[in-house]
Amino acid sequence: MAEASRTSEARRDAVFGRWVIFSPARSRRPTDLKSHGPANPSPDLDDGAPKPSCPFCLGRESECAPEIFRVPAPDASPSWQIRVIENLFPALRREAEPPAPEDEEPVGAGECAVRGFGFHDVVIETPHHEVRLWDLDAEGVGGVLLAYARRVQQLAEHPAVKYVQVFKNQGASAGASMAHSHSQMLGTPFVPPSVNSRLNCMKEVFESSGKCSLCAIQSKDILVSETHNFSAIVPFAASYPFEIWIIPRQHSSYFHETDQDKVLDLAGLLKSMLQKLCKQLNDPPFNYMIHSAPFGLSSSCLPYTHWFLQIVPQLSVIGGFEMGSGCHINPVFPEDAAKILREIDSS
Amino acid sequence: MAEASRTSEARRDAVFGRWVIFSPARSRRPTDLKSHGPANPSPDLDDGAPKPSCPFCLGRESECAPEIFRVPAPDASPSWQIRVIENLFPALRREAEPPAPEDEEPVGAGECAVRGFGFHDVVIETPHHEVRLWDLDAEGVGGVLLAYARRVQQLAEHPAVKYVQVFKNQGASAGASMAHSHSQMLGTPFVPPSVNSRLNCMKEVFESSGKCSLCAIQSKDILVSETHNFSAIVPFAASYPFEIWIIPRQHSSYFHETDQDKVLDLAGLLKSMLQKLCKQLNDPPFNYMIHSAPFGLSSSCLPYTHWFLQIVPQLSVIGGFEMGSGCHINPVFPEDAAKILREIDSS
Ligand SMILES: Nc1ncnc2c1ncn2[C@@H]1O[C@H](COP(=O)(O)OP(=O)(O)O[C@H]2O[C@H](CO)[C@@H](O)[C@H](O)[C@H]2O)[C@@H](O)[C@H]1O
Ligand SMILES: Nc1ncnc2c1ncn2[C@@H]1O[C@H](COP(=O)(O)OP(=O)(O)O[C@H]2O[C@H](CO)[C@@H](O)[C@H](O)[C@H]2O)[C@@H](O)[C@H]1O
Repeated sequence: MAEASRTSEARRDAVFGRWVIFSPARSRRPTDLKSHGPANPSPDLDDGAPKPSCPFCLGRESECAPEIFRVPAPDASPSWQIRVIENLFPALRREAEPPAPEDEEPVGAGECAVRGFGFHDVVIETPHHEVRLWDLDAEGVGGVLLAYARRVQQLAEHPAVKYVQVFKNQGASAGASMAHSHSQMLGTPFVPPSVNSRLNCMKEVFESSGKCSLCAIQSKDILVSETHNFSAIVPFAASYPFEIWIIPRQHSSYFHETDQDKVLDLAGLLKSMLQKLCKQLNDPPFNYMIHSAPFGLSSSCLPYTHWFLQIVPQLSVIGGFEMGSGCHINPVFPEDAAKILREIDSS
Repeated sequence: MAEASRTSEARRDAVFGRWVIFSPARSRRPTDLKSHGPANPSPDLDDGAPKPSCPFCLGRESECAPEIFRVPAPDASPSWQIRVIENLFPALRREAEPPAPEDEEPVGAGECAVRGFGFHDVVIETPHHEVRLWDLDAEGVGGVLLAYARRVQQLAEHPAVKYVQVFKNQGASAGASMAHSHSQMLGTPFVPPSVNSRLNCMKEVFESSGKCSLCAIQSKDILVSETHNFSAIVPFAASYPFEIWIIPRQHSSYFHETDQDKVLDLAGLLKSMLQKLCKQLNDPPFNYMIHSAPFGLSSSCLPYTHWFLQIVPQLSVIGGFEMGSGCHINPVFPEDAAKILREIDSS
């Protein structure tokens, strides 16, 4: 399929079980509309100068919702390096009454409604307004990842929290409303839809092949970079151009169980991938998401659940086809994106 | 849950089985980022004047990919009212060899790839550059819907086409690259992911309750408008603020089997909903999608498949939480959106 694969091809992945259409020709279509939103990656940030009005900046802690914990600055200064705080405008509320056990897992697939209980936190990654995550050294990025892991561990203790979605929005076109470098996490009283479909798909693959979908990935064509503990790939059926997955090389279900050494290794790779995307795509808006396993999974599910971190640069707007069908159209073949990303110097 | 429902609530629908978080407080969060993309609904179109460079305009037919059929103008003029043409930059190619029966439905849930066979067509809804779909009279809108149905009927005949996604992108933030009013359809050699999960969810509901999820909808609170044959509602677990579903009141699996009288009735309701959205939301970018059943379904599936048309105004950018979890955060409760839409005059 060598020749055909460079015209058009449909692929289904073994993690979400989603079809994606690869169509390089699509990128040549014309437009007579003025702005294409995210299609023009633009520096969404303001001029980067410290903003007197930014509540995430050093010295403005009192304008934030309550702090959950902080990572002190490495020297003996009274200042901080990272703060994990409550979201002032939470989507789910920690004060709400958790769903009672009987409505915890509402039966059947019919309509249902539960109170808006949950945890919505913000991780302020640096005290400085103008510093971006990948400007930090690997240890600084590692500190942020360790802060995620520590907070997820805390939330995992709560009997009504079923899942924690860790994510980062960078740039207005990636949804960010705050410019100061931060990420978020939401602890939900239900297992979210994509987590469910990921588990179902990986279970099916495991039952038919005896393999974990992520452990089974072999191809060198889609590899961007590798460390002792992690591989960075462009997935075989990437939904978005230049999408990257960072996957632990050793089978492991839960992100928050990763030990400190491995987290530092991950931090270096994450920093390098963000630098590559930044160079190749001219500082694009992007999101990243950590895909882990829901809490309290039966041990029979552990062999096929494998956590990973997904990075998605936001280069184009989604249209009605994707919204209706759940099938994305990606103009860039994963092998081509991986080759380009492999060859970029990330320093 | 009356009081709580106005703070925060999570709901799961009975059609896609997706959780959505309703959180009115979220709409009050501040932003220090300059442009929020789609969050500022703006007239994405150019000044609306006929564009000498637009290939969809009357007289420029030769700049388009081949015509499939046209609907002639009602008077005896040699002109046309609607054209269905091939997409010049197709995501899937009609010349590609269709997948062989053995790789038609690739077994298991593992990775797989098929040739990019399929049909990608464009429906030019009017010969005039400046006319929007809802500027047409109900008969004109009906003509467009009948053109969809006719083309879907043709594609349904092809043994390798499993589904046709009909959709419209209006405005750059909704993905449109062409300003001239048009819609598209893509006939795929696989059943797309969201269609699969919709069918699975509706099947489960049917098996546990004996009811079709859409026939079971009762609440008057979420009703926007009704005709003899169709209801327009804001769905109970709408993913997007002011999302509208137009649903045939009589159980029916396939959009393309709707008879001409009913299509005209649908056209009037669609026009009125688009006018309401346009008034309430200041001419927002939007998408609509027709959700129908895949072709060649066994007759045992017909009792729980029910087609509908989904309209989604694009008011905000999706962030990492939604991308990672598949769970949307919607600041507007469906009952509130429905009340507002009910009260707007659509003439
Ligand atoms: N003083 C303060 N103290 C504490 N917290 C404060 C604060 N001021 C602001 N915040 C919070 O800081 C967060 C900043 O988050 P982001 O910039 O990543 O995107 P946001 O959550 O606004 O929405 C994006 O991400 C979400 C989730 O993906 C999408 O629903 C949405 O459409 C998209 O725009 C906001 O959630 C806000 O509530
Ligand atoms: N002369 C000509 N003859 C025939 N056809 C012509 C033509 N000139 C242009 N076209 C086609 O006309 C179509 C116009 O479509 P839209 O404006 O609805 O959005 P588009 O498909 O570009 O992408 C949006 O919708 C798709 C599908 O949802 C998303 O993948 C994408 O990100 C989003 O921007 C294009 O597909 C283009 O290929």
